[in-house]
Amino acid sequence: MHAVIMAGGRGTRFWPRSREKKPKHLLDITSDKTIIQETVDRIRPLVDPENILIVTGAKHARELRLQLPDIPESNILIEPVGRNTAACIGLAAVHIMKRIGDDVMIVLPSDHAIGNPKKFRSVLKAAALAAKKQDGLVTIGIRPSMPHTGFGYLEGGSSIGKIGGEEVLRVRSIREKPKATLAAKFVKSGRFYWNSGMFVWKASTILEEIRRHLPALSDGLGTISDALGTALEKRVVARIYRRQASVSIDYGVMEKAKNVFVIPADFGWNDVGSWDALWDISAKDSQGNAVPGGFALLEDTNNAFVYSPSKLVAMIGMKNVIVVETQDALLVCKKGRSQDVKKIVDALEAAKKIQYL
Amino acid sequence: MHAVIMAGGRGTRFWPRSREKKPKHLLDITSDKTIIQETVDRIRPLVDPENILIVTGAKHARELRLQLPDIPESNILIEPVGRNTAACIGLAAVHIMKRIGDDVMIVLPSDHAIGNPKKFRSVLKAAALAAKKQDGLVTIGIRPSMPHTGFGYLEGGSSIGKIGGEEVLRVRSIREKPKATLAAKFVKSGRFYWNSGMFVWKASTILEEIRRHLPALSDGLGTISDALGTALEKRVVARIYRRQASVSIDYGVMEKAKNVFVIPADFGWNDVGSWDALWDISAKDSQGNAVPGGFALLEDTNNAFVYSPSKLVAMIGMKNVIVVETQDALLVCKKGRSQDVKKIVDALEAAKKIQYL
Repeated sequence: MHAVIMAGGRGTRFWPRSREKKPKHLLDITSDKTIIQETVDRIRPLVDPENILIVTGAKHARELRLQLPDIPESNILIEPVGRNTAACIGLAAVHIMKRIGDDVMIVLPSDHAIGNPKKFRSVLKAAALAAKKQDGLVTIGIRPSMPHTGFGYLEGGSSIGKIGGEEVLRVRSIREKPKATLAAKFVKSGRFYWNSGMFVWKASTILEEIRRHLPALSDGLGTISDALGTALEKRVVARIYRRQASVSIDYGVMEKAKNVFVIPADFGWNDVGSWDALWDISAKDSQGNAVPGGFALLEDTNNAFVYSPSKLVAMIGMKNVIVVETQDALLVCKKGRSQDVKKIVDALEAAKKIQYL
Repeated sequence: MHAVIMAGGRGTRFWPRSREKKPKHLLDITSDKTIIQETVDRIRPLVDPENILIVTGAKHARELRLQLPDIPESNILIEPVGRNTAACIGLAAVHIMKRIGDDVMIVLPSDHAIGNPKKFRSVLKAAALAAKKQDGLVTIGIRPSMPHTGFGYLEGGSSIGKIGGEEVLRVRSIREKPKATLAAKFVKSGRFYWNSGMFVWKASTILEEIRRHLPALSDGLGTISDALGTALEKRVVARIYRRQASVSIDYGVMEKAKNVFVIPADFGWNDVGSWDALWDISAKDSQGNAVPGGFALLEDTNNAFVYSPSKLVAMIGMKNVIVVETQDALLVCKKGRSQDVKKIVDALEAAKKIQYL
């Protein structure tokens, strides 16, 4: 079995900690390990390091190698430019085909938190069995705890029974991020699951689906496949990538494919998509304050998130506020508004304040 | 004419900027000059530097001399311990008597802001005339703009007419900081003024009043007077101060004296007593945000005060908040709550975190 970890994101919403040179998955945000180290450690009992592929951009490859010394260097696949998840997954699939013919591949985002890793692995094992048995595309659906508008949704249909101890459903529809009213309907129906962005399938299956639904990408991947291991590999990959459209695997393949399944799961998943999401999963005191590291004096202050490893923070009369301090920047953000951190990054880009990006 | 600047305060409410080693008046909080530099510059057109005395503690004398190079070193009077304003003023008075017999002394706190310094000086000039003419204790009363509970109040009585262009009233009563309901009554009556802590009198007049109402202090000042200029001066001052009670000039003298006057004045006075008070007098943008120095990105943020000279500050969705960043500490405080900064300093003292004091 192979694992493919997609590590191409920037995670700008963790500014000021996340920077162009250090995106979210390379930061120690959820523990004393970095998020990608957590991700690799989590899958390691299921997949040997030699079979863990990581797809990333050139400027983060060095740091990745430093953080993951037991992943073979040749397993770090470099995309010359980001072209969204369809290309990323396709690239990994042709590598796997080239290496050992065919294999099941577990596709994982690099930057999620999982409360119950044991359950997580048992679900993935079941998904691998289902992917082989059905020759299908298996998704992992998270039972929604609220009508979140920041996630896509998977609509479950009829059951094909239990595989590896897990109920496997056919997917009736795949929905992009809904508005609040629709999200509420989804959750109320009981049929919808959050699309975790984790997928399990055989390399051959997904390449066949790409051939069917994204022929231009499929052609490119064929060219890349021929060049793998040759002196031309890097140049060919660069040329092919440059001309690809940016398409997500959900939009480009999953929404059109027929053989899609979902395993509803519940293993303490959190996409750690924002400072708010991080507060959700952080240890808090009786006042709801999370202070991961550092020394804080909190006077009449509730539901605060304070990250300031090197500086004393004193707060007075503050409710629902996020404070993040780094060497050159300070964020003070109302809780519930941390999606707008992106606006700050956009403003910095517009103002060409590159030192803060 | 002499000026006496009382520079003994700690100004803990400007933590984290104010520290034991750098109290408020030694900081450049209101402009690019320090507050005491502003205070000296403001009085300079009225009083020559040789006649400006500054009373301070030993640990701040060096920094004071550095900040005020044209004040003669012998004009910086050092109190071995702080004993409140009665002793401070008495010490300055015996110095003046010793120097030139008698003179009018303008007593000023070291740490106030004045919007209209020209008017300020013309009021002080009138006060000096009144002090001489009446042989009295002349106070400066600020017309209250709100029922502030953080100031003492002066109740004006009958007018003795205009002196130097300013109306001079007898003081009917002197009140300590009132509760909110009483403060409201004071303001409504139209008879009450904020006690600015600025006083004008002859040195001989205040020493006579101290003799009458604070005989123990008066005796001590007599002993100090005899020792001034001798090799024993420092030792005598230390001995006398040690045994003095801590008494304010208001409580110890003004509330008991008969010959007390007030000149109602309006020259943009602000005691700069807290970060809130500083926001009041700061330049603000159309959203009510004050950012004195530094670079801030404020998204959907109003009525904020941001001091962070060396770090970019980004704020999202914040209303009425004070952010102050220094090299080792960060304060995030709800506006209206900055009086409680003192609680933080108390907590740091209790926790023996002396590096932050």
